[in-house]
Amino acid sequence: MAYELFYWDGLQGRGEFVRLALEEAGADYIEVARAPDRDGFGTGAMMDVLKSRSEPHPPFAPPFLKDGDLVVAQTANILMYLGPKLGLAPKDEALRYVVNGLQLTIADMVTEAHDTHHPLAGGLYYEDQKDAAKVRAHDFIDNRIPKYMKYFERVLKQNPDGDAYLVGTALTYVDLSMFQLIDGLYYAFPLAMKHFGEHYPRLAALHDAVIARPKLAAYLESDRRIAHNEACIFRHYPELDKAVR
Amino acid sequence: MAYELFYWDGLQGRGEFVRLALEEAGADYIEVARAPDRDGFGTGAMMDVLKSRSEPHPPFAPPFLKDGDLVVAQTANILMYLGPKLGLAPKDEALRYVVNGLQLTIADMVTEAHDTHHPLAGGLYYEDQKDAAKVRAHDFIDNRIPKYMKYFERVLKQNPDGDAYLVGTALTYVDLSMFQLIDGLYYAFPLAMKHFGEHYPRLAALHDAVIARPKLAAYLESDRRIAHNEACIFRHYPELDKAVR
Repeated sequence: MAYELFYWDGLQGRGEFVRLALEEAGADYIEVARAPDRDGFGTGAMMDVLKSRSEPHPPFAPPFLKDGDLVVAQTANILMYLGPKLGLAPKDEALRYVVNGLQLTIADMVTEAHDTHHPLAGGLYYEDQKDAAKVRAHDFIDNRIPKYMKYFERVLKQNPDGDAYLVGTALTYVDLSMFQLIDGLYYAFPLAMKHFGEHYPRLAALHDAVIARPKLAAYLESDRRIAHNEACIFRHYPELDKAVR
Repeated sequence: MAYELFYWDGLQGRGEFVRLALEEAGADYIEVARAPDRDGFGTGAMMDVLKSRSEPHPPFAPPFLKDGDLVVAQTANILMYLGPKLGLAPKDEALRYVVNGLQLTIADMVTEAHDTHHPLAGGLYYEDQKDAAKVRAHDFIDNRIPKYMKYFERVLKQNPDGDAYLVGTALTYVDLSMFQLIDGLYYAFPLAMKHFGEHYPRLAALHDAVIARPKLAAYLESDRRIAHNEACIFRHYPELDKAVR
């Protein structure tokens, strides 16, 4: 039976981390919110699960996954659940916790990237918190991008199985997520990211290696890949970007 | 061999979610940063792991756990790893993903609670972002506490096994974490939390039931439980609190 992925139509967002894993694995899945209403899908079908008063394990927010009757919520949790089934997790069970720890660190950085444009309240318009956003975004560029990326570069460098993948000797879902994180940062902060490859050569190589994978490349070229946009986590507001060495 | 928990001395912080599980299970563990330097422990020993250039799977930040050679990072990941070993996870493997999904939703709310006093930058002093903090804290009180808590109350209500625990028929680590979240909110926002029990009776009952467990009660009374304080996630700044109905 096909996996059912529930995420907002029109956004890469956190759902994209799950999409990349499903696409790389060539898995059979339905994007519920993007599938036709007439077939019982669509955003309404997603809202029905979110608002259900009978669902035994209701999710807080998209993305969530249905695999038969089981509802799995939270991006990193969905990926930890799917990883072994899709052949995108290490065979060594202990290393799966290493992968999940890295995935959660990526998730923390994704939240911080979001908060660059919404530091005061998710429910307020960007236009009503632009000054605060500028302070937060420049702190993100000056301090947080280097802190996280130095760390992730070091993870690649110290991987005892070589620096091609974050964990072990083969691609796992966290490598796909690292591509997505870097891709989002390139979109949102092109000035700040200009010298990324000089500072973090292993991460840049991983990013490029993921794009070059045939299934991923086909997905990124397809209509299924939604374009970056300013309703999403990674937003390009030129006034928040700035050049760094 | 004893588990080694690495977290900042003097803070409940994110480490506390792990401490509660270890304490409830009566597990054999060492708090590395709080153990004596002369025995090779202390904060220096923790920093050595964080800065290690040879550790195969370096963590980004505390808390992290060492179980033999394996380093497990990120609070929710540590708990997912420990849960089955400590008898604090469901026997049904599918339900472990439900528990982890809830744990990650708690983690999201914990991050938002932190950002009420540091909305602009973690590296800036609170005093330099007090106005922004007030906007964010009041949004947290008006919008985020109700959104999350209505959800968690509904999780208890819809649990097909009854409303005593968040998942299944027995205590799991996520129930302990829910206690800790509510406890932190009571400390930080006493005015906003005044009517908590009226709005969320099942959550209030869960909170009280956790405190009443003998091992947890003994721990909370012991010197091992660090007091809430203003270097931590849940900070009591009266100017950020406000009464709500």
